[in-house]
Amino acid sequence: MNAGEWTILRPHVVRWIECDLYAHVNHAAYLTLFEDLRIEHWKKLSGRLPGLHPGPSPVVASIEARYLREVGFGDEVMLGCRTTSFRRSSYVHEYALWKAGELCFSARCVCVVTEGGAKAALPPELRAKLVAEGAKEE
Amino acid sequence: MNAGEWTILRPHVVRWIECDLYAHVNHAAYLTLFEDLRIEHWKKLSGRLPGLHPGPSPVVASIEARYLREVGFGDEVMLGCRTTSFRRSSYVHEYALWKAGELCFSARCVCVVTEGGAKAALPPELRAKLVAEGAKEE
Amino acid sequence: MNAGEWTILRPHVVRWIECDLYAHVNHAAYLTLFEDLRIEHWKKLSGRLPGLHPGPSPVVASIEARYLREVGFGDEVMLGCRTTSFRRSSYVHEYALWKAGELCFSARCVCVVTEGGAKAALPPELRAKLVAEGAKEE
Amino acid sequence: MNAGEWTILRPHVVRWIECDLYAHVNHAAYLTLFEDLRIEHWKKLSGRLPGLHPGPSPVVASIEARYLREVGFGDEVMLGCRTTSFRRSSYVHEYALWKAGELCFSARCVCVVTEGGAKAALPPELRAKLVAEGAKEE
Repeated sequence: MNAGEWTILRPHVVRWIECDLYAHVNHAAYLTLFEDLRIEHWKKLSGRLPGLHPGPSPVVASIEARYLREVGFGDEVMLGCRTTSFRRSSYVHEYALWKAGELCFSARCVCVVTEGGAKAALPPELRAKLVAEGAKEE
Repeated sequence: MNAGEWTILRPHVVRWIECDLYAHVNHAAYLTLFEDLRIEHWKKLSGRLPGLHPGPSPVVASIEARYLREVGFGDEVMLGCRTTSFRRSSYVHEYALWKAGELCFSARCVCVVTEGGAKAALPPELRAKLVAEGAKEE
Repeated sequence: MNAGEWTILRPHVVRWIECDLYAHVNHAAYLTLFEDLRIEHWKKLSGRLPGLHPGPSPVVASIEARYLREVGFGDEVMLGCRTTSFRRSSYVHEYALWKAGELCFSARCVCVVTEGGAKAALPPELRAKLVAEGAKEE
Repeated sequence: MNAGEWTILRPHVVRWIECDLYAHVNHAAYLTLFEDLRIEHWKKLSGRLPGLHPGPSPVVASIEARYLREVGFGDEVMLGCRTTSFRRSSYVHEYALWKAGELCFSARCVCVVTEGGAKAALPPELRAKLVAEGAKEE
């Protein structure tokens, strides 16, 4: 995975709260880091923050995460997010975390767009933005 | 998935801290609930808590989670954990969360046994216990 | 502090997620444990969970916490909560955590009752219940 | 409190994970934000991260927090940290959070310096740095 191919890239320094007794980042703490990128992406896409305004918002339908190399307290890492594909009312995110250029964590997340508790179609202007990002319609 | 087929079953009432702006359990909070069961299982298996004593301990190598139905603050749910298979130095856990008998969340987690930062073989007595639980050697 | 004098007492086993690199309970994790008791107390008092129903709910206005002895992963502890006093629209909680009978953590929390973002008076039946608990009107 | 008088100032945008059902920052999440500043300050002071290296590290002995105004998801806030005083083996931090120039949260934290589980004296060079920051010896 090449950093140039990612829609969102953000540096991060591992926080005390993210580490556990093993002195490594806890497995659930990774997911929270990428939650931030998922929200940042949605804000760029729709102009709105989820949960605060009427209109569609994404929820996580499934996630697959691979923990490849341990990351520790104070480590300087890079976080990446990109959309690989989308359908009528969902899109697929990939997440990656690198340390010194080495991939340490990767994940694939299916986000479903909902409104009022029901699935909602991605509006045409959001679909166009996803295509412009490089995501494929499936 | 039938509750009778699970090695560990534990009731849980959804906590305030586990819920987010959507008034539902946050996607990462599910993983932390099952971390507790993974540790309880390891304690039953090895007699030891991870991270506190010398000797092998499990780490999460990968996890696949499916969010099937939303769960809210104060909901009474049931958590399940079982080992489906194992290899030389790893085993596979399945996790499930039910509300009123309906499956709301399921996950599959590959746990790698490590000692001093390197993979370690599952000791024979632990392998025997996993077989007794119903796990298959692969 | 005698355990007999506490309105709510609940045993707890320290979780992996609550511990940090020092192998002790993180200072903020204590507050989340007592958030559970504050909510349990409000449910007993009002019959309702905060945040889910119309009507008054408590929010934390201030908290003073003392970390007296370290508590570690897997430790069996006891959590206590009681109301010491109340006013028109607020009440004071005390929290305590003991390990093997020794006080390890104590806190004092001012809870303000709000409704629709504004302070709300404690209804007479809730005031009566607080008096029955042993709380003093100030 | 004037922002010019703070040793560490850091902007922050409130994260999804920090908010609860009330759509506001959870009371414990504030403490975790200031944990980051406490660690950053210790790193500046000692050149070392706590928990990773031999030598003294700070632990929280007590904290007093006042929740003055609610802060919500996506809010742009400023975080401040300063040392007001110190003794042989402890120092006092003040923390503040502002939104649009208004103070929303303030706290006072007593940090005790420990090494190997016992109180340790602040080394002379660290005392000198605290004086240079404006902290008073008590």
